[in-house]
Amino acid sequence: MSDEVSILFMPSGLRGRVQIGTSVLQAAQRLGVDLESICGGQGKCRKCQVSPQEGEFPKHGITSRLEHLSEFTETERHHQAKNRLKEGRRLGCNARILGDLVIDVPEESQHHAHHISKAVTAYDIQVQPALRLYTVTLPEPDMHAPLSDKRRLQQALVQDFDLPTLDCEMSQIRLIQKALEKSGRCITAAVYQHEQIIGIWPGEKKKAYGLAIDLGSTTIAAQLCDLDSGEVIATADTMNPQIRFGEDLMSRVSYVMMNEGGDVALTTVVREAFNLLAKRAAKSAGIALDEILDMTVVANPIMHHLFLGIDPTPLGTAPFTLATDQTTVVRAADLDIYLHPESRICVLPCIAGHIGADTAGMILAERPDLAEEYVLLVDVGTNAEIVLGNRNRLLAASSPTGPAFEGAQISAGQRAAPGAIERVRIDPETLEPKFRVIGCEVWSDDPEFAQKSANVGVSGICGSGIIEVIAEMFLAGIIDQDGVIGLVEGKDSSRVALDGRTYSYLLYEGDKTLRVTQNDVRAIQLGKAALHAGTRLLFDRMGITKVDRIGFAGAFGSHIDVKYAMVLGLIPDCKLENVGSVGNAAGTGARIALLNMPSRIEIGEILPKVEKIETALEPKFQEYFIEAMALPHKVDKYEELSKVVKIPPPKPKAESDRANGSKRKSRRRRKQV
Amino acid sequence: MSDEVSILFMPSGLRGRVQIGTSVLQAAQRLGVDLESICGGQGKCRKCQVSPQEGEFPKHGITSRLEHLSEFTETERHHQAKNRLKEGRRLGCNARILGDLVIDVPEESQHHAHHISKAVTAYDIQVQPALRLYTVTLPEPDMHAPLSDKRRLQQALVQDFDLPTLDCEMSQIRLIQKALEKSGRCITAAVYQHEQIIGIWPGEKKKAYGLAIDLGSTTIAAQLCDLDSGEVIATADTMNPQIRFGEDLMSRVSYVMMNEGGDVALTTVVREAFNLLAKRAAKSAGIALDEILDMTVVANPIMHHLFLGIDPTPLGTAPFTLATDQTTVVRAADLDIYLHPESRICVLPCIAGHIGADTAGMILAERPDLAEEYVLLVDVGTNAEIVLGNRNRLLAASSPTGPAFEGAQISAGQRAAPGAIERVRIDPETLEPKFRVIGCEVWSDDPEFAQKSANVGVSGICGSGIIEVIAEMFLAGIIDQDGVIGLVEGKDSSRVALDGRTYSYLLYEGDKTLRVTQNDVRAIQLGKAALHAGTRLLFDRMGITKVDRIGFAGAFGSHIDVKYAMVLGLIPDCKLENVGSVGNAAGTGARIALLNMPSRIEIGEILPKVEKIETALEPKFQEYFIEAMALPHKVDKYEELSKVVKIPPPKPKAESDRANGSKRKSRRRRKQV
Repeated sequence: MSDEVSILFMPSGLRGRVQIGTSVLQAAQRLGVDLESICGGQGKCRKCQVSPQEGEFPKHGITSRLEHLSEFTETERHHQAKNRLKEGRRLGCNARILGDLVIDVPEESQHHAHHISKAVTAYDIQVQPALRLYTVTLPEPDMHAPLSDKRRLQQALVQDFDLPTLDCEMSQIRLIQKALEKSGRCITAAVYQHEQIIGIWPGEKKKAYGLAIDLGSTTIAAQLCDLDSGEVIATADTMNPQIRFGEDLMSRVSYVMMNEGGDVALTTVVREAFNLLAKRAAKSAGIALDEILDMTVVANPIMHHLFLGIDPTPLGTAPFTLATDQTTVVRAADLDIYLHPESRICVLPCIAGHIGADTAGMILAERPDLAEEYVLLVDVGTNAEIVLGNRNRLLAASSPTGPAFEGAQISAGQRAAPGAIERVRIDPETLEPKFRVIGCEVWSDDPEFAQKSANVGVSGICGSGIIEVIAEMFLAGIIDQDGVIGLVEGKDSSRVALDGRTYSYLLYEGDKTLRVTQNDVRAIQLGKAALHAGTRLLFDRMGITKVDRIGFAGAFGSHIDVKYAMVLGLIPDCKLENVGSVGNAAGTGARIALLNMPSRIEIGEILPKVEKIETALEPKFQEYFIEAMALPHKVDKYEELSKVVKIPPPKPKAESDRANGSKRKSRRRRKQV
Repeated sequence: MSDEVSILFMPSGLRGRVQIGTSVLQAAQRLGVDLESICGGQGKCRKCQVSPQEGEFPKHGITSRLEHLSEFTETERHHQAKNRLKEGRRLGCNARILGDLVIDVPEESQHHAHHISKAVTAYDIQVQPALRLYTVTLPEPDMHAPLSDKRRLQQALVQDFDLPTLDCEMSQIRLIQKALEKSGRCITAAVYQHEQIIGIWPGEKKKAYGLAIDLGSTTIAAQLCDLDSGEVIATADTMNPQIRFGEDLMSRVSYVMMNEGGDVALTTVVREAFNLLAKRAAKSAGIALDEILDMTVVANPIMHHLFLGIDPTPLGTAPFTLATDQTTVVRAADLDIYLHPESRICVLPCIAGHIGADTAGMILAERPDLAEEYVLLVDVGTNAEIVLGNRNRLLAASSPTGPAFEGAQISAGQRAAPGAIERVRIDPETLEPKFRVIGCEVWSDDPEFAQKSANVGVSGICGSGIIEVIAEMFLAGIIDQDGVIGLVEGKDSSRVALDGRTYSYLLYEGDKTLRVTQNDVRAIQLGKAALHAGTRLLFDRMGITKVDRIGFAGAFGSHIDVKYAMVLGLIPDCKLENVGSVGNAAGTGARIALLNMPSRIEIGEILPKVEKIETALEPKFQEYFIEAMALPHKVDKYEELSKVVKIPPPKPKAESDRANGSKRKSRRRRKQV
């Protein structure tokens, strides 16, 4: 193994060990990294350009050096001389790995075949956009009754469309006279929010477009919509390039605190990503960039502040005060987003220091404020945002679940990308697993699996896979109610084996070895306990013990099987058929705000009435958290669950209640005997 | 005379003939050009830098070549090597004139001692500015009831000052948190037009400032005001740098039509001049540029459009349609004016294609719409803007007076600058003149005149001087009622002499020879006829024959002696004591709009009700114009005028009515006998 070195690809975060001499392109392909190549590694297409990084990456245990790549080849020098290979770039197919490396895959080298995790779901939105086009024909000028062209336009809009007298942006006033001249005095005006003319074109213009953007810590997803039909005509997504400054939100805030100008750097890269997404979506839909006149954005508080150019550091420490908790409407150009020159951006409001505009979007998408019954909405990420209530009252909180549900801080974890294990079943008799990976339709026990999964491989376990494997391990008895992995009495399987001082479960052995370790189980237990404790606080505050409907939002919510979530106790009491994914509710909320102007006003009215609960301040949070560590924490769920999954009988309540560290230890010792 | 060459200085337009070998600095000093020099021409101070121009200037009959200056001296090379002399620049004291030249005096080489023609007049303005400062102390954040800092600020402004809930500019939201931290949660907010927070500072800020700008074709004048006290704390003015693209408005419009990107060039230079004026005013008042938060602008329609970046070409041809005739409020930065980042600019509205925001300013300053009696307001420039009416009805027109009243197109004419003749008296017995020049307190017949005028010299005749000399010539009988210059019967004076085929009057002979020619008289006659015809059209429309009060606005209005204006028939019937200068009414209007927000709304309500009269479309204009050519055109004014000036008796009406070209010719011939 001494001729193997470590390699980490950014921004995907995929990593692994490869033979010295492997080309970067080969390594990328093996690890499931999205690195484009058209010529098949012949050095011709120049698509596989990468940026090797220099420096210490202590978190990953990598010291990356440029000299850990082979010297520049003739081919690379040739491309460099012709300015086809930028400073600091290498050709992935030419550069061979000689030592530990961190390699950045630039945006333009990514193939974007990766799993679109923030799927677009179909909602019935009443199309009533903030941006509308109006075509009018103005009368000829009359020197005896001189009126400016702007005033004639205003009058025509009042007469023909019953609009109020609208002001017009100076940049567009400049266009009116030429437009009138060009088209026999027929012009089209774009009117924003019923109050301002922000676009002028000669003749009749029928279509204008808008972008709804879900700005996540990890992924940025854009939906390009026809503002007339409401149709989504293109989608585009990209990794959030801020990842290079810190994987999670708090490390990005730290970056800002530690580095002069760090906030500007983070703001700049995210805005660049917006421009790139807009370009890509426009190209894919075959429209011009300047036909995009409106944009809505949802984001968590830190992303929200960084995107708007507001220092996020106050969000990193108590009292976690937002700079603004109101809808922000600005000119896109003022945020360095270049669409139509007067295009607007409407950023939905954040709710509190830990509860962002993404939650506002979820509320817009699900409208719990209109529900008769009690609704629980949960968006699980590094933090879980929780909204509970109905038409009478809404509560919201954020709970620190950690990144385990997203596959991070899990030994074999990875993001939801091709090659990631997303479904797992464990035979309770043999303890043998079978699984499915993203990018391959068949299960691992299918004879065609090896062939069909060849192009994606098996690279790690994503969030939904983690939930399933741990739930299946629990159902198979490999994990006990306290979350301890151990040998199963009466089963002789090499899958469960000592791994240092604790046991682990061997899920896969191939190019890579994927194990579920005791630490992995602990991370999931911590996450689910946090989620559960947060939810319970809201239940307490509301004075209820169960809800009528549960909606899981976000990528995690779309992929997990709610049964397994219930097995692990992620979900409070609710009829299983009333639990489901609500898709990318934040993104849907952004699209609703884009296509339906009244909803922008409504969300501004709903949010101030939402009661915010700061989990860290609640005395009971810690107590609930500890209580929720066990798997599953409530015995009475067994009955319902046993209808859908094969489930071992609950232990007597007394024993379960005594669950604690020392007891777990003794149990482990017992099994080690 | 063969060793003399022609030299023209820009942007002042001052020109003359100088000996070959004269230094540029000497030439400038002799012609009254504003070129700074501290070291007295020793090549040390480098203040006298100039830009010689290369090219044909057919209008001035000059072919300017760089080689028409002596070669670079050692001194100049030395400064060049040290980057103290920019590319294309020469030191005025070192470069000697060898041939015809056009020389540009850069802004920074101008001494700015020149006559501030747009004087600041004191008006009693109710100080109620659009921009106000509010200092509040916000409560400590409460994690149990989280509110954003923006919302707390809004609440404090509502509670403490009864303001409505105000939105805040994003750039200022970014400052709130740091400001709160810095000052124990006490901050000051600048609120614009009662609707938007556009500035944030830590602690208490007491002063904010605003600029009122009168953007004229020739001069740009700024008044820097304390927005709290209303006081004018500094003034600054500069030549309009657009002059290099065309002396008058129409030649600037032609420049735009003939040159690709010409509009951008004209817009850019005028905005640069704004920035320069703002800097200069701020410096002179000892305030920081970013303490200026508001600005108001008045301008004629073409200046108005060019400043706002709107193509002015539609204003150059019928139907002379304005792009906008409404008040324009934009961010200063959007017009490339750099004050406080969120500083606003309010550009007052134009009235019609020929009647600008300067006239709107005049209406604000004089408020004829509130008058009981009939008021006539006249702003004389290249066009005369005329407003007539009272509280019941207002009429406005523009009449093409030509530039003669400003000293242009007059053989010895020049702008109002040091050395220009501004007052003239002619002894009716001897026909000998005496005069006063700007920059010297004594008359030319004073023994101390030579000494006291030495530093300014006698360089030309400005607008008010032209009016006086022609009126005095008329009163002395040198000019007859038809405007023909001729010998005076019974007077033997060499002052009146044949000058080609017509007579001229020798006003001054010294370094320069200043004559009043027949063409000069014609130019003034045409101007006054246009003014009179325009006024008469308004009288007709209003159905009146005389007014109760006449106000002359502008530089011309401030300097002329109304008696002489009446002698020449510039003014319609009105009691002489009710005729006067209203100062720089346009600039005053800009200041009123700056200091009194309600007036901005009022002017927007007044203007649409003003009846616009397009003089060119009125069938009677030509008739009135021809009738008004005679001096003075109405016999009945003699009685009143004779009380204040010595005036020859009127001719019988019959003869005066027959005044026409052929008759003038015969009269001239008679006198030439």
